[in-house]
Amino acid sequence: VSADGAPVRTAGPVLVVGTGLLGTSAGLALAARGVEVLLADPSPSAVALAADLGAGRPVGAGGAAGADPEPRLVVVAAPPDVTAAVVAAELARHPEAVVTDVASVKAGVLAGLRARGADLARYAGGHPMAGRERSGAIAARADLFVGRPWVLCPAPAAAGAPGSSAAAVAAVADLAADVGGMPVVMPAEEHDQAVALVSHLPQVAASLVAARLRAAPEAAVALAGQGLRDVTRVAASDPALWVQILGANAGRVAQVLAPLRDDLDALLEALRRLDGTGADGAPGAHAALARALGAGVEGRARIPGKHGSRAAEYSAVTVLVDDRPGELARLFADIAAAGVNLEELRLDHSPGRALALAEVSVLPAARTTLVEQLGAHGWAVHEG
Amino acid sequence: VSADGAPVRTAGPVLVVGTGLLGTSAGLALAARGVEVLLADPSPSAVALAADLGAGRPVGAGGAAGADPEPRLVVVAAPPDVTAAVVAAELARHPEAVVTDVASVKAGVLAGLRARGADLARYAGGHPMAGRERSGAIAARADLFVGRPWVLCPAPAAAGAPGSSAAAVAAVADLAADVGGMPVVMPAEEHDQAVALVSHLPQVAASLVAARLRAAPEAAVALAGQGLRDVTRVAASDPALWVQILGANAGRVAQVLAPLRDDLDALLEALRRLDGTGADGAPGAHAALARALGAGVEGRARIPGKHGSRAAEYSAVTVLVDDRPGELARLFADIAAAGVNLEELRLDHSPGRALALAEVSVLPAARTTLVEQLGAHGWAVHEG
Repeated sequence: VSADGAPVRTAGPVLVVGTGLLGTSAGLALAARGVEVLLADPSPSAVALAADLGAGRPVGAGGAAGADPEPRLVVVAAPPDVTAAVVAAELARHPEAVVTDVASVKAGVLAGLRARGADLARYAGGHPMAGRERSGAIAARADLFVGRPWVLCPAPAAAGAPGSSAAAVAAVADLAADVGGMPVVMPAEEHDQAVALVSHLPQVAASLVAARLRAAPEAAVALAGQGLRDVTRVAASDPALWVQILGANAGRVAQVLAPLRDDLDALLEALRRLDGTGADGAPGAHAALARALGAGVEGRARIPGKHGSRAAEYSAVTVLVDDRPGELARLFADIAAAGVNLEELRLDHSPGRALALAEVSVLPAARTTLVEQLGAHGWAVHEG
Repeated sequence: VSADGAPVRTAGPVLVVGTGLLGTSAGLALAARGVEVLLADPSPSAVALAADLGAGRPVGAGGAAGADPEPRLVVVAAPPDVTAAVVAAELARHPEAVVTDVASVKAGVLAGLRARGADLARYAGGHPMAGRERSGAIAARADLFVGRPWVLCPAPAAAGAPGSSAAAVAAVADLAADVGGMPVVMPAEEHDQAVALVSHLPQVAASLVAARLRAAPEAAVALAGQGLRDVTRVAASDPALWVQILGANAGRVAQVLAPLRDDLDALLEALRRLDGTGADGAPGAHAALARALGAGVEGRARIPGKHGSRAAEYSAVTVLVDDRPGELARLFADIAAAGVNLEELRLDHSPGRALALAEVSVLPAARTTLVEQLGAHGWAVHEG
């Protein structure tokens, strides 16, 4: 039984094939809930590490062939470009098991399985929307999937061949829920278009912006602020993995990038006209800038906040905090004592100074209480 | 005398012309340190609001013309596109005063002043690298400039006309330091190129990415994670202000965007080749993706962390925190009790679940202590 009282629904043994970040995290989460987990990976050292971390038991550890129990569920967490081949092999190897995968692009896996004549009734693809800038078993954690969408993409029946059975979809939904994720069912094509937009586009944009910093003067990067940091954070992600992801979703990412490129061209043209002639000689150029910036404001407002609500529904105040041990603790103790729940937090550093700005977001109804209570405790609170 | 013991060097009265975010914040910071501040703005309600907030006293408040004391320093915090005209007028109106401005693009202001035959010996331009997604006096705060670079761009002598005097530059450096900023001297052209890269480029990229969300299906934006949030955060900024900033730095922003557009085109071509033919028929396409992503990793690594050190010099651990009042307080109390200083903090929300992940960055030497102490206090700590 989990912390929130829901019983474990996944029936083991579960075989995890691929003990990288996602596979090991799934193993850790299942093992922590008492599910029997078997681990396999082409790399013996990778599987040994995952086992040492507590993610399960390596297959073949008993010595004799056939000593491992037959899995009821196989989770393929292989690199994206070999996922279809591995899923097909596992379907053939374990004829009673349901097989799923965690690849972040789904239509290609499905096409690869159809091309291999795989038994799709026992397959249901999945994509946990969880990841980190770091990779490998060492970065794994049992709570990686907690609260994250886990998209399920059942195979539709096609050309007389059956698609994913209801039982297979249910088994993968149970897995997702058991490790703390939020199952969301979506056709593969729709999923791949969605991640091209909300995941692959920001990755590409961050990399393109960060690439401009390579040759920048030291004095210029020294002026970098939080805006540049935020825009480029995901640019630190593993290029090898992202080559595979972008490659597997190439057409849909291109469809998202093409209109962005057109917007960029329009912006560039407006900037060049303003540069060449000044505002008076460039009619419409300022309007073009305003359109681009206004479109960004509109798009940004569509991103949901925590608990599915909009970010704009929170109310923020800023508190000045001395940058030394104990001060943040004192701040959060005072927030807690006010009975106010912290919805979002930004800690804004002050390079070269022993001060930080904590931007504390709360529900609007709690704002007045928060400001009063923090003020009463001597905090410098700034509204705005 | 300030909190860190440095005496106030700015000699008042200081006249702040323009009581928006920056002007009002400067007034608040100076007034808090006992400097006499006069406020002026074309909008009577804006100046009244700034005065009510404690940023200074409106000019002409005494009733009789000429009742205001003559300012020794004038800070022009007008919109970028009228800054040169306002600075020139203030130089003429106050023939003994040093005049500075806070416009975020500097070469155009300087050119505008030369065209007007202004007395540049009494002028030194400035740009506090501080801002918020919100604007206006209501968003102002006395600590806005604390720890931030405040770039000074002295006017060079040209064509027989003198440039900024040493006394003028010193007066603006004193102002910057008195309000908590870090004065940095840089030629206007170099400054404008730097901000095109570290400030204007991320703004444009964020707006372009966010604009793609406008027409997105609800189910797609529901999958948005922290990566998309971070990349698009500054897209919420005021379009009217940014139209002026980008317009004033149009040529340099175009010079930064043009190679990014070329990189984007190369990426698009590689993606389209992969989409049309698959990996086997697109030699070099994966290498093109890898180059773009690798360049991003390199560029990202150049961004300095807090206190001027590199972000990579910190060591991060992740702690699972119940999302209810008091839990963060307890965490930070335990961190403080361990004698460890928190260098950076990311609070990672778990939509739909009552859990948050706090990623706590500390100096590498403090990591082991932190992990041990938090573990001893029962926290679920994840390394990786």
